[in-house]
Amino acid sequence: MPGPFDIPLAALRQRTSAKWTTYGVDVLPLPVAEMDVRLADPVARVLHEAVDRSDTGYAGDPGPVRRAFAAFADRRWGWPVSAEDVRTCPDVAAGVMAVLRVLTRPGDGVVVMPPVYPPFFAWVRTVGATPVEVPLTGVDGGGRIDLAGVERALAAGTRVVLLCHPHNPTGAVHPAADLVELAALADRFGATVLSDEIHAPLAHPGSGFRPFLTLGAAAERTGVAFGSASKAWNLAGLKCALVTAGSGRRDVLEALPPELGWAVGQFGQLAARAAFDEGEAWLDEVVAGLVRNADLLGELLLRHLPGVRSPRPAAGYLAWLDCRALGLGDDPAQVFLDRAGVALHHGPDFGAQGAGWARINVGCPPDLLTEAVRRMAAAVAGRSLTPPVGVDHAG
Amino acid sequence: MPGPFDIPLAALRQRTSAKWTTYGVDVLPLPVAEMDVRLADPVARVLHEAVDRSDTGYAGDPGPVRRAFAAFADRRWGWPVSAEDVRTCPDVAAGVMAVLRVLTRPGDGVVVMPPVYPPFFAWVRTVGATPVEVPLTGVDGGGRIDLAGVERALAAGTRVVLLCHPHNPTGAVHPAADLVELAALADRFGATVLSDEIHAPLAHPGSGFRPFLTLGAAAERTGVAFGSASKAWNLAGLKCALVTAGSGRRDVLEALPPELGWAVGQFGQLAARAAFDEGEAWLDEVVAGLVRNADLLGELLLRHLPGVRSPRPAAGYLAWLDCRALGLGDDPAQVFLDRAGVALHHGPDFGAQGAGWARINVGCPPDLLTEAVRRMAAAVAGRSLTPPVGVDHAG
Repeated sequence: MPGPFDIPLAALRQRTSAKWTTYGVDVLPLPVAEMDVRLADPVARVLHEAVDRSDTGYAGDPGPVRRAFAAFADRRWGWPVSAEDVRTCPDVAAGVMAVLRVLTRPGDGVVVMPPVYPPFFAWVRTVGATPVEVPLTGVDGGGRIDLAGVERALAAGTRVVLLCHPHNPTGAVHPAADLVELAALADRFGATVLSDEIHAPLAHPGSGFRPFLTLGAAAERTGVAFGSASKAWNLAGLKCALVTAGSGRRDVLEALPPELGWAVGQFGQLAARAAFDEGEAWLDEVVAGLVRNADLLGELLLRHLPGVRSPRPAAGYLAWLDCRALGLGDDPAQVFLDRAGVALHHGPDFGAQGAGWARINVGCPPDLLTEAVRRMAAAVAGRSLTPPVGVDHAG
Repeated sequence: MPGPFDIPLAALRQRTSAKWTTYGVDVLPLPVAEMDVRLADPVARVLHEAVDRSDTGYAGDPGPVRRAFAAFADRRWGWPVSAEDVRTCPDVAAGVMAVLRVLTRPGDGVVVMPPVYPPFFAWVRTVGATPVEVPLTGVDGGGRIDLAGVERALAAGTRVVLLCHPHNPTGAVHPAADLVELAALADRFGATVLSDEIHAPLAHPGSGFRPFLTLGAAAERTGVAFGSASKAWNLAGLKCALVTAGSGRRDVLEALPPELGWAVGQFGQLAARAAFDEGEAWLDEVVAGLVRNADLLGELLLRHLPGVRSPRPAAGYLAWLDCRALGLGDDPAQVFLDRAGVALHHGPDFGAQGAGWARINVGCPPDLLTEAVRRMAAAVAGRSLTPPVGVDHAG
């Protein structure tokens, strides 16, 4: 039986999603955060059935997906979410911006922790607030929250902390002790922690991932969490995510605008429900594949690109490549795109701390990852490469 | 061959969209603006194929849907849109709010023309602006723009006009001459007209519908239009719409935030492309069905509810029912829901002008419409009705 990543490159090239239409056919695309997986059977089934029912109107009753998420959270993380404290939104972007509009006024600060998912900066600016950068410490090891830095920002008046957990781009899972301390800080200053947990279902075994809202009373008083099936089941284009408020921040849910529910994708809602309710076996298979791919990346770098260091991700399918020793300048992704036909996400987009780094997406067939690192190594070695180099057989 | 509206009620009750999950099984749901249609074959095909490809990542290259919309607009309305002037967004709500954020500052006024689609008020308030009401005149006949009222609002400093064309809830198609004058007014005051043309592909034959941006140089200088396949092909849950700028407002497109494209539904984009490119025969069949249903509504009211007047819609599947002569109070929809098990959209939600009115959705099987009016008439006549009354055979 083929695994979820066993898809020929020729089949992937038929896809019309952002990952597969942003670059030409000479390029191996590893920047956009989608996975090259076959859909989980229960998800594919409900989508086909919805098409057969012509069930394409506005997303209906959100009760089933709320309950499915709550049950999944309880099974997976021992998190007894009440479905009443969950709201649907089209994606984490829309959810975070809607919550920021409730919590901030123009000019207010919002703590972000670079290097971090570039839209965090854009979302904060779009709502009229200002990013207050508190960089992660020890990014070489995946990165930890600079709790003293957060405290200074809160003491200076910032009242919202935008947390990425697991962290994008490094794949770090924040230790529970750090999150407990973060919650205590937020509680002391009356601040709110927005915890983007979109990659959480893809936490690797042994990572110790804990949802923010499971970490005690201070977290319950200060936290709003964002979850989704979109990363774990590869449904980013179908538009459904979930906002969960801690017991102390239910007022935030009540203040969300009515447009948010109408903006949810009907197919996203159906697919997310099926994923949470019936997709856990598939999920475990994908996580196992991602662990193998993370191992493979480590081996490939060691063998072909020993100048590149990368903290081992503890979750998800993204890895953060320290290319500074290669002397490729601030944006090695551009060099690899131009010289190797390999598209990575540009490091500097993640903040000033990303200079000399690039983000790679290992949620792909192992052969494709191998071919990408091989091409990158050849480009660094100065060997001429005329793509495509056997790429159409890479899958 | 069955028409697009030939769907048994039992099959419709299997749907999970908002229209079919907001009320209990005793209720005939005619408020939410979805149609009870079978999907156009080309749309169903591309959706099944996308599921089979597991093509559920972020919406990809928007070029094809932009070009498909431009080609459709040219064929259908002789509107030579350049695909370069079209941007995708998830829905008209998101598009209008994004454009309002470009054009207004908190507290600025935005002209809205009640009775009008209730979210217009909400969108304006969500972005921090203030609705400036310039009610339609002659709503008994479908409603016309109060051009003198718009002029006064512009003279008083308002710089954005939110137009609904065709108009929701009355189904009126604004005469080209009125739109030309509106454009001239906007041009004189340096204002922008946002023309929501989401129902435009459903304009009835002979309605004289003309896209705002086809109405000359002043319209080109002042107009931003919003189109979609969502109403005409019943794809509201899949999340793709199109913003088109006139030649004088291309700056608005450039100022839209990058989040907007990532928020587009991948399946919505694929479905919209198929609809515009290959769905026009299906569309004409649906429009013919809507014309028949509008005729049927007129006959049913005359026969069973002669106290209710309704301007004949010139587009789409919504009709505006003047129930004031029935003495059911400000919100007849509530009375019909409670006493007849028929859900209509509440008139007062459309503005103060909606007191005593209700909006009905005739985009349904004719038998369902017949049964709804029969139930409403029985309730008004004071006859006891214990739903369901043969409703499960109504399809």
